[in-house]
Amino acid sequence: MDIKTYMQELGRQARAASRSMAAAGTAQKNAALHAIAAALDGGRAKLQQANVEDLRAGESSGLEAALMDRLELTPARIDSMLEGLQQVATLTDPVGEISELAFRPSGIQVGKMRVPLGVIGIIYESRPNVTIDAASLCIKSGNASILRGGSEALHSNQAIAAAISAGLRQAGLPAAAVQVVETTDRAAVGELITMPEYVDVIVPRGGKGLIERISRDARVAVIKHLDGVCHVYIDAHADLDKAERIAINSKTQRYGTCNTLETLLIDQQIAAEMLPRLADLYAQKGVELRGCKQTMAVLPDINAASEDDWHAEYLAPILAIKVVSGLDAAIEHINRYSSLHTDTIVTENYTHAQRFLREVDSSSVMVNVSTRFADGFEYGLGAEIGISTDKIHARGPVGLQGLTSQKFIVLGDGQIRE
Amino acid sequence: MDIKTYMQELGRQARAASRSMAAAGTAQKNAALHAIAAALDGGRAKLQQANVEDLRAGESSGLEAALMDRLELTPARIDSMLEGLQQVATLTDPVGEISELAFRPSGIQVGKMRVPLGVIGIIYESRPNVTIDAASLCIKSGNASILRGGSEALHSNQAIAAAISAGLRQAGLPAAAVQVVETTDRAAVGELITMPEYVDVIVPRGGKGLIERISRDARVAVIKHLDGVCHVYIDAHADLDKAERIAINSKTQRYGTCNTLETLLIDQQIAAEMLPRLADLYAQKGVELRGCKQTMAVLPDINAASEDDWHAEYLAPILAIKVVSGLDAAIEHINRYSSLHTDTIVTENYTHAQRFLREVDSSSVMVNVSTRFADGFEYGLGAEIGISTDKIHARGPVGLQGLTSQKFIVLGDGQIRE
Repeated sequence: MDIKTYMQELGRQARAASRSMAAAGTAQKNAALHAIAAALDGGRAKLQQANVEDLRAGESSGLEAALMDRLELTPARIDSMLEGLQQVATLTDPVGEISELAFRPSGIQVGKMRVPLGVIGIIYESRPNVTIDAASLCIKSGNASILRGGSEALHSNQAIAAAISAGLRQAGLPAAAVQVVETTDRAAVGELITMPEYVDVIVPRGGKGLIERISRDARVAVIKHLDGVCHVYIDAHADLDKAERIAINSKTQRYGTCNTLETLLIDQQIAAEMLPRLADLYAQKGVELRGCKQTMAVLPDINAASEDDWHAEYLAPILAIKVVSGLDAAIEHINRYSSLHTDTIVTENYTHAQRFLREVDSSSVMVNVSTRFADGFEYGLGAEIGISTDKIHARGPVGLQGLTSQKFIVLGDGQIRE
Repeated sequence: MDIKTYMQELGRQARAASRSMAAAGTAQKNAALHAIAAALDGGRAKLQQANVEDLRAGESSGLEAALMDRLELTPARIDSMLEGLQQVATLTDPVGEISELAFRPSGIQVGKMRVPLGVIGIIYESRPNVTIDAASLCIKSGNASILRGGSEALHSNQAIAAAISAGLRQAGLPAAAVQVVETTDRAAVGELITMPEYVDVIVPRGGKGLIERISRDARVAVIKHLDGVCHVYIDAHADLDKAERIAINSKTQRYGTCNTLETLLIDQQIAAEMLPRLADLYAQKGVELRGCKQTMAVLPDINAASEDDWHAEYLAPILAIKVVSGLDAAIEHINRYSSLHTDTIVTENYTHAQRFLREVDSSSVMVNVSTRFADGFEYGLGAEIGISTDKIHARGPVGLQGLTSQKFIVLGDGQIRE
């Protein structure tokens, strides 16, 4: 079978399965999640065997260490997949929720009902645990899904897929509700993103290059996240101890995550006091600082920041620092350079907090909190299928609700329009 | 200036104006709407003069009668634009609305704030009143907009644009918050839909060809509506009087609208009783019927429906009729052929109504109501900028809320992640 025919067949089956998933009850979907966990747990030996196959192939093809690490399914990582499944089962089912149902003068009642999106295509890279995260969220939200993992995780993903199919069938749901693409041919991605008759939304997870390519070529909606150029702004009215904690934690708790601080903004009134204090702490952590002119007037030994630094998502122990004239300049800088991901103000000033919350146009806007909290689990969404920096549909961490939309429902008693 | 430079300049100004619009208060936005109404009212002579210019040009270029009719700005139509502006001013401002703000175990408070989308590009055809509908909804929802009306309405739209600019300025808002494209060069559309740095969403309104072209070529999100292939399903448990009223009204109240009935489904148990009764009434209205085999067994004199008829959006006094074996077959037919617009069941059966509401995957799903109610005004949204048959973001009539999205806000007291 050629790739196009193969992907169309997956699509056709997914579309058919999506009808059953949309009509499935909460208990049935939860039963599937529990059954998948049991199947994974019972099949640990097989799963680890498949994973070893991927690891060996990765080794012989010279896969880099970071990717090898992501690829590995340790017993602890399998445990955490099982926990993830149980946790998604405990989440409230968003499907069928009716809101805003109210009478209109014509006598009709108009409201909204939350419904699955239909078929979701997810394209991701080396970590096989994403297969379970994505499948569990799609199942609970009543969607069918087609998952396309990284070629280096093919055997692990197929073993996980077998457990998912078994769990779905055991709960009386169609196995085609979650399909893992079984070819490593890159043409499969091209097909997946251009079948609007079978796929309603694409969620790409991976490097910027992958996501840009998919956004450019897709013929269906894409829920995506490009960069995480996150800011902390320390206002003149900040509590300086909170500011220190937040500035250090946002940058150094983990360097490689998308909600890590990349540019620190600081009000000129407190720059002379705060910058040396922060510079000491960053130095202890080995963070390289790159400053604007005013920053360098206080910290003459650091490197100068160029225009590129304001745009940079370092994902590394490097931090750009800019002194600003106040709240307006901070908001202006953020709205110009931010990637619409996550930005925090540290302030005790009520009006500044309110203005920052309202005027910063990012998917997560925070007051007196580390940027590292921008995460589906921390937000109480359960797992997340990704973080959206788009402006329509879902913004920020995308959980069950982001995988649904609302249709209008109208209840009447024979009304007609005159 | 070439078209690309011109459109980029509009984009740049719109992006700048969108910041002011997002920060503008409710009173200020309402003041702008009232001031625009006053400017339009005070400039009726100029407006009608500009409209006469368009009508003359249309006449000499042989514009068809239906388009000439849409183009004309009668005093009544100007009145209704003024009423529209006042009405949008009375709607609740969606911007800044905070919901679901709740504490998490970490001590942070996580919630959602409703925010404008940013810059909205609207592409539409001959009716100049769309300029006011679109502008007023974008202003109230805190968005900047770039409006590209039909070339045949250029002078009318420019006169309306002048009133909009005057009103915005009078309320202290940037005139660039609403910009009407002043060239009839078709390349302007191509530029407008490929400037993601300046335009966040495109709303195309017009024929299917236009919308398909825009969806294919756009590099930004598109909120669109392709077809209105709407169904009424008369269940075996229908109240036959309600069924008659709804089937007739849905088809014949207006033929050319997207929420008009195009395919009637009827349960086989009541086909023999209902079909002759409906056929008489449709005959009185001059509606041509095209039936499936079972329909023709009852009504032998009508034309046979082909596969194409189940897909057809006639927008004309033609109706396809199919006899189905029951609820399941009706839902299956609708989910296969419907354009996800509006579908109605007529039934007194509780379980059938519930299943239809849940399982029909259209943007408006109705019980015992004419499909003609699928409309922003009837739903209480005020005006509508269009009807979306997409599955992400907004479904159905798109009013103020559909022109906004929700960002996450997080309030803390110095929390960091451990």
